[in-house]
Amino acid sequence: MNGAESLVTTLLASGVNVCFANPGTSEMHFVAALDRIPGMRCVLGLQENIVTGAADGYFRMAEKPAATLLHCGPGLANGMAGLHDARRARSGIVNIPGDMATYHRQFDAPLTADTDGWARGVSAWVKTSMTSAEVGPDAAQAVQVARTSPGQIATLILPSDSSWSEGGVTAPALAVPAAPQPDPHAVQQVARLLREKKNVLLLLGGLALREGAQMQAHRIAMATGAKLMCEGSNARVQRGQGRLPLERVPYVVDQATEALKWVENLVLVNAKAPVGFFGYPGKPSILYPAEANLAVLTRLEQDAEAALRAVADELGAPRVAMPNNGPRPERQRGALSPEGLARSIAAVMPEDSIIVDEAVTYGRGFFPFTHAAPAHDWLMNCGGAIGFGIPVATGAAIGAPGRRVISAQADGSAMYTVQGLWTQAREKLPITTILLSNRKYQILLGEYRNVGANPGRTAMDMLDLGNPDINWVQMANSMGVEAARTNTLEGCTDLMEQSFARSGPFLIELDI
Amino acid sequence: MNGAESLVTTLLASGVNVCFANPGTSEMHFVAALDRIPGMRCVLGLQENIVTGAADGYFRMAEKPAATLLHCGPGLANGMAGLHDARRARSGIVNIPGDMATYHRQFDAPLTADTDGWARGVSAWVKTSMTSAEVGPDAAQAVQVARTSPGQIATLILPSDSSWSEGGVTAPALAVPAAPQPDPHAVQQVARLLREKKNVLLLLGGLALREGAQMQAHRIAMATGAKLMCEGSNARVQRGQGRLPLERVPYVVDQATEALKWVENLVLVNAKAPVGFFGYPGKPSILYPAEANLAVLTRLEQDAEAALRAVADELGAPRVAMPNNGPRPERQRGALSPEGLARSIAAVMPEDSIIVDEAVTYGRGFFPFTHAAPAHDWLMNCGGAIGFGIPVATGAAIGAPGRRVISAQADGSAMYTVQGLWTQAREKLPITTILLSNRKYQILLGEYRNVGANPGRTAMDMLDLGNPDINWVQMANSMGVEAARTNTLEGCTDLMEQSFARSGPFLIELDI
Repeated sequence: MNGAESLVTTLLASGVNVCFANPGTSEMHFVAALDRIPGMRCVLGLQENIVTGAADGYFRMAEKPAATLLHCGPGLANGMAGLHDARRARSGIVNIPGDMATYHRQFDAPLTADTDGWARGVSAWVKTSMTSAEVGPDAAQAVQVARTSPGQIATLILPSDSSWSEGGVTAPALAVPAAPQPDPHAVQQVARLLREKKNVLLLLGGLALREGAQMQAHRIAMATGAKLMCEGSNARVQRGQGRLPLERVPYVVDQATEALKWVENLVLVNAKAPVGFFGYPGKPSILYPAEANLAVLTRLEQDAEAALRAVADELGAPRVAMPNNGPRPERQRGALSPEGLARSIAAVMPEDSIIVDEAVTYGRGFFPFTHAAPAHDWLMNCGGAIGFGIPVATGAAIGAPGRRVISAQADGSAMYTVQGLWTQAREKLPITTILLSNRKYQILLGEYRNVGANPGRTAMDMLDLGNPDINWVQMANSMGVEAARTNTLEGCTDLMEQSFARSGPFLIELDI
Repeated sequence: MNGAESLVTTLLASGVNVCFANPGTSEMHFVAALDRIPGMRCVLGLQENIVTGAADGYFRMAEKPAATLLHCGPGLANGMAGLHDARRARSGIVNIPGDMATYHRQFDAPLTADTDGWARGVSAWVKTSMTSAEVGPDAAQAVQVARTSPGQIATLILPSDSSWSEGGVTAPALAVPAAPQPDPHAVQQVARLLREKKNVLLLLGGLALREGAQMQAHRIAMATGAKLMCEGSNARVQRGQGRLPLERVPYVVDQATEALKWVENLVLVNAKAPVGFFGYPGKPSILYPAEANLAVLTRLEQDAEAALRAVADELGAPRVAMPNNGPRPERQRGALSPEGLARSIAAVMPEDSIIVDEAVTYGRGFFPFTHAAPAHDWLMNCGGAIGFGIPVATGAAIGAPGRRVISAQADGSAMYTVQGLWTQAREKLPITTILLSNRKYQILLGEYRNVGANPGRTAMDMLDLGNPDINWVQMANSMGVEAARTNTLEGCTDLMEQSFARSGPFLIELDI
């Protein structure tokens, strides 16, 4: 057995059976091993951020890691923005860049690069397997690291001679450590705080946004009057009927400080204390009152549901039903608006849909109008590296077979990873992309005006996406994705429903 | 004057007047400064490898650096493959990622990343301007580093508060050091070697491939019988009538060792000793005979033309005319073939065309059939990070106004940076893209067969680009680029000539 074969058998033994791939020469023995050994679903991405973003989306829905296959340092670099977002989403990925043969590295061949150094900034664990005998054990460890709560990126660098040399051994799966249990002191401290203090916000993040944890948080809120919110960006929120109508910490600094100005006690549940996406002249970095008292109920890796249940029990909070979020929104007609689009999506989305939200400016107001939609999952960009939408939608569809994915996608962001539409077509994934075409970097135009000026010609050359306008129907068609254009709410609703009847992908160009 | 304004005025004072840009929020004051201060041509790329690859192509033709504008660590990461290729091509770039405000970095906001660490692997110089007062002097130094022979990447990281704060100062341009003169000992050693030894190869790279250096190398070859070749990958070769019919070191290891097996004395002129792109089982890493004697006439940064002239003078070599490369190839008809396409391009290309060659497997044989074309420049991928073609063509067109760019582009590679077609359309650049559509990673299929097996279904899932086939005419049209498809040589020739009559870009989908 060569090293590459031991990699495949070890990954399979450890429960990894999807590999998002963009191979090159140095990975050919890995590709050959994947071909010879049955059991791994291999999905090609035509640019590496498709590969890494898909692995992110897969983890969010499948709750286990996929492998990636990348080509040397530059292939890793091309996928690093996707890994950055995945790291911020706390997604587990077994990230496998191939590399130069160990003995060939000294010759500084063209593709030689600092693969290890680049990987460190996006990985919890990096290891280069220097011999074929190390590959199996390293792979088992990589899977263990990737599966360690809440999810981590483990980068296993595979020199081509470690791959092709005989002497590989299949390593048994290593035990996946359970999420650490809550700290009893933290539970008691938070329970006391909830009993004694006013103006308490429980800020929920990560696994605290799953249905079970929400139920416990709701018990606490009903018993104490504490308010619940979720972080500004969340990897996966379970929403809709039967779930809580949680609001996010707003993106815009002034809106966020306004929304949080009442907070005297901030309790973090798998969440980080909210800070601005960026620093701005004369505005604060932290979004909550500086004098607020902070308490950590659970760190990012701890079991949020257990902690919330322990607090609720400690408080003697009765079990309560989840709130009714009101009647399902109705179909909308007429001119496009963010609110109208959100209501339209809520009106027609299938039960258990997955929304991938890279709607950026247009989507900031979507949340309130979709609380009463059928139960669904909502996936957001946690790292701020734009272009996450198309790849994450791709991976989410593979990680949750049978569920409809609705990808709400701004045009500027879409262009970073537009190649992912091809993978959606090849894999015949049930993804409806709502492409929000405003032909500008709207978020930047807003930021530019905050700088205190109207953009002139040179600035518009960098902020405007028109001239030429991108034809999204042609773009999708060119990669095998059916598509149509509309500029009304009823048109969009009709196209959404048509797309839901299809088994493959569909793109709706929404001329907003 | 704020830091951003001092950056723009300093860049302009130092002769940098083109900025390839993909801005984000943290760069808005830089964008505003570019808007307020006239003189900088700002070119938007919709993904960062377009930005960095264009800066590479610009340098190759303009022989001076452009600036880039990137958004934080992930934006840098998205452009790192282009920077990797630029570094290997020895292109000078003033690479400017914006970043978090200095005081905001501690809060680990979503886009916080190891910008400095990532930049080091692709840069000769990295500096973060921690105050607005540092920005001007840092920018002047960055330009100086970028212009230092043969060309280097200088990364200036610009925190947003260094950008928006007052206290910026315009720094004067720093002197650009001339390329170091040749070492007289090396000149004498090489001259003696040429007089006394047989089977000498002068391997030319970098600036040794410009017309003037070629003339001196030709004197030496005519006087001594030494053979001349160029490296396997070259940033810019001046070719065609009036230039030498140089052959490249072949890409395939067996072909390269065969081509170099006669070499007893290898003289490096701005070149590196040839090594394989990759290590392969049982094949050598170095491509020349292990017992060959190596001599370095010039290091990569030295003045090759001066050194070659000094050697020729030392040898008393007479001045000689450049060879006649034979009659210009004629138009071809019938079925497509690499040879036929190369002859067709040679038959119709305008004088002073720029060929950007990312034809990969299909293009390996193009060289011999284009020696007798009109004078032109040939630009290759020096770093092996594929997807260099569309961006480098874009930058080359901006760096050499009035010249036709012919971009010979394989389909698989094109998909990594396809967004660059939009920039070609926006800037109305005279670029003819010959898109070689074989719907597979042909190079990898060859490599796979070398592994010793025919690819099965799983391997083909990762090596085949069909299912669905990409429609390149639609793809180009979607981004505002005119396009047409053909599968004959006469069809391609006709479309090339039509495209040469246009002022903007055109894409020919060649169904090979």
